[in-house]
Amino acid sequence: MSEAEIARDFVRVLKSVLGDAQTQVPLHAPFFPGKEKAYLQDCLDSTFVSSVGQYVDRFERLIEEYTGAPHAVAVVNGTAALHAALVLAGVGPGDEVILPALTFVATANAVSYCGSVPHFADSDRLTLGLDPLRLGKHLEAVVEMRDGQPFNSETQRRIAAVVPVHVFGHSVDMDLLLEVCGSYGIPIVEDAAESLGTFYKGRHTGRLGLLGTLSFNGNKIITTGGGGAILTEDAELARRARHLTTTAKLPHAWKYEHDQVGFNYRMPNINAALGCGQMESLEQFVNNKRRLAERYCRAFGEIEGLECYVEPEFSESNYWLNAVLLNRASGDTLSSVRALRNKIIGSCADAGYMLRPVWNLLPTLPMYQDCPRMNLDCAQNLEARLLCLPSGPGLLAD
Amino acid sequence: MSEAEIARDFVRVLKSVLGDAQTQVPLHAPFFPGKEKAYLQDCLDSTFVSSVGQYVDRFERLIEEYTGAPHAVAVVNGTAALHAALVLAGVGPGDEVILPALTFVATANAVSYCGSVPHFADSDRLTLGLDPLRLGKHLEAVVEMRDGQPFNSETQRRIAAVVPVHVFGHSVDMDLLLEVCGSYGIPIVEDAAESLGTFYKGRHTGRLGLLGTLSFNGNKIITTGGGGAILTEDAELARRARHLTTTAKLPHAWKYEHDQVGFNYRMPNINAALGCGQMESLEQFVNNKRRLAERYCRAFGEIEGLECYVEPEFSESNYWLNAVLLNRASGDTLSSVRALRNKIIGSCADAGYMLRPVWNLLPTLPMYQDCPRMNLDCAQNLEARLLCLPSGPGLLAD
Repeated sequence: MSEAEIARDFVRVLKSVLGDAQTQVPLHAPFFPGKEKAYLQDCLDSTFVSSVGQYVDRFERLIEEYTGAPHAVAVVNGTAALHAALVLAGVGPGDEVILPALTFVATANAVSYCGSVPHFADSDRLTLGLDPLRLGKHLEAVVEMRDGQPFNSETQRRIAAVVPVHVFGHSVDMDLLLEVCGSYGIPIVEDAAESLGTFYKGRHTGRLGLLGTLSFNGNKIITTGGGGAILTEDAELARRARHLTTTAKLPHAWKYEHDQVGFNYRMPNINAALGCGQMESLEQFVNNKRRLAERYCRAFGEIEGLECYVEPEFSESNYWLNAVLLNRASGDTLSSVRALRNKIIGSCADAGYMLRPVWNLLPTLPMYQDCPRMNLDCAQNLEARLLCLPSGPGLLAD
Repeated sequence: MSEAEIARDFVRVLKSVLGDAQTQVPLHAPFFPGKEKAYLQDCLDSTFVSSVGQYVDRFERLIEEYTGAPHAVAVVNGTAALHAALVLAGVGPGDEVILPALTFVATANAVSYCGSVPHFADSDRLTLGLDPLRLGKHLEAVVEMRDGQPFNSETQRRIAAVVPVHVFGHSVDMDLLLEVCGSYGIPIVEDAAESLGTFYKGRHTGRLGLLGTLSFNGNKIITTGGGGAILTEDAELARRARHLTTTAKLPHAWKYEHDQVGFNYRMPNINAALGCGQMESLEQFVNNKRRLAERYCRAFGEIEGLECYVEPEFSESNYWLNAVLLNRASGDTLSSVRALRNKIIGSCADAGYMLRPVWNLLPTLPMYQDCPRMNLDCAQNLEARLLCLPSGPGLLAD
């Protein structure tokens, strides 16, 4: 088939799943079917719209109940959550932090905010996230232990943390990753920004490392406008997370004592009010999205050279973004695949459906091009071949 | 008079101005007399609650109209605004930034986030903010010019910026400060977190330096839950501010190209919707607060040893927080003044009125105790003697 024929088929299949696009179908629009408005009004009536208020507490309890994490700390966005979690994990100036090359730029930025340097790892075709086995081999080659601490023997920097990202809401193989990192004593901070609602072998993502972080940005499965959360099993880390994200102020009715350089990262109560409404619909949203994934897979199965991405068996995924892989011919060059991908995006946009490719690999960005990395063959392949489909939680709502 | 008598008088005067405290009168509660609820509902109906949306644009235009600043960039809070503004002013790792010792900790934290070191300056009894004349003398003593750049000859660090804070909404004497800083080529970034509604010689605060920053935290004259803004006269700085605070993403419908380490600092649309409602009441809030200041001054004038703080002639102030100075006897020690201050705070709290002292001087905090500083006599005096009074914009509302 020609590029144009494939693009036409693509549009036809989208129509069969989503119906005619009356107006532009966005990639992931927020959906407010519950009590969001009532909670916002109540929040305004209370006048507590800012950094203190009962909706923040309630939202944190709802996150804890849903994920099973004993401690959730709500913050201003997912980037802030990851930054604070890295600081809490002991990442500091001059350290190195391992993260996938294939992720949103915020993952690497949070590392930079710590004064640390990203070290890019390859992806796993099975999960789209960090490949634990190949990372293990890479670490074997570059790590040198000094006084019980893992150092990169090439850069002389300490490797202070590994940040797996559960890309598009599919879980990394955490047991393998824990084994690899455990043998060097490297703490894991999970970037679960995309995976609220995703369980790895029955345990919620973000609960498998030392700390995990969520995002409630407008394009996530639930939204608080802007927002994020830190998850941890450890009461003392939770206490420190709360302290660090509220300007490190010591509790007192009117004294201004702060004992470290803290952050103004607390989630405002008005955003938490929105989040409380959204949490009441989360189960329904996950169901909608899993149902949508099934329909996409059935429909795209007919088109030759397209492969619908399906969750690995150990991941019960939220299918935050549905994705297809362009697998036309084995002899295809990546640049011809990218051309086809862009053609499809253009045709779908013309027909009213918003698609997008995955992120540019982070080491191709100017500020990260000199960072250490392992071989990135799989990530490069995925970057060219992945296409994300409209996946909003309201798309198949009754 | 004894401490107990003064405290009793204090309570009596508060009652005469504010009426009996039915419930606790907070220091500064938000007030929503306008269209806030309608705008929040409309924002939800649009589904654009996050980092893109028309309320963000509208809020920025309202800020521009009110302040006269050609460019306002709305961000997630005042700390983020100051951090980004410092980066835009060229502050970087290893630099030194001059700021008052008497300010909220966020001013110094924003400097720390840049990898820079705070250098603490004394306050002016007239404005409660940075004292330009004494700063000028201090700079004369410590600055050494190298290749046209000002260095601290004692620490060998470049002095990259001066951050005046318009404390409690009263303007620093900016003409004097501009003259002092101008002679060394040091850029000024105004921390106008407390002074939305305050004009210096007819020009809105935050518009006198290279960049200025506002805060819309819950305790500010208007609130967006959490929020802030960057003001500048310079179109190119405004463009860079927008870019830097939105992950430095290059504009494109679906490509993920970012050209520097950016921040996730954009204000969500839902918070901006609240801000649009608040901006419509800002003039009324300023009037209410100036009226309250007059009443406090008249009432506290009767008590010997108390001095109501009044705006300097060049500042038309928003009186964000009303303050009195405890000036009992010239022979008083600062520790006896602090004891009296704490006694008054306690008695007022018992009677239902929330007061607070000013912030601990920043160089007394553990993370800033080794930072360079000038003589801080005036700031130390103010720290002991200042008491802030309930000042919410709704207190004298009809």
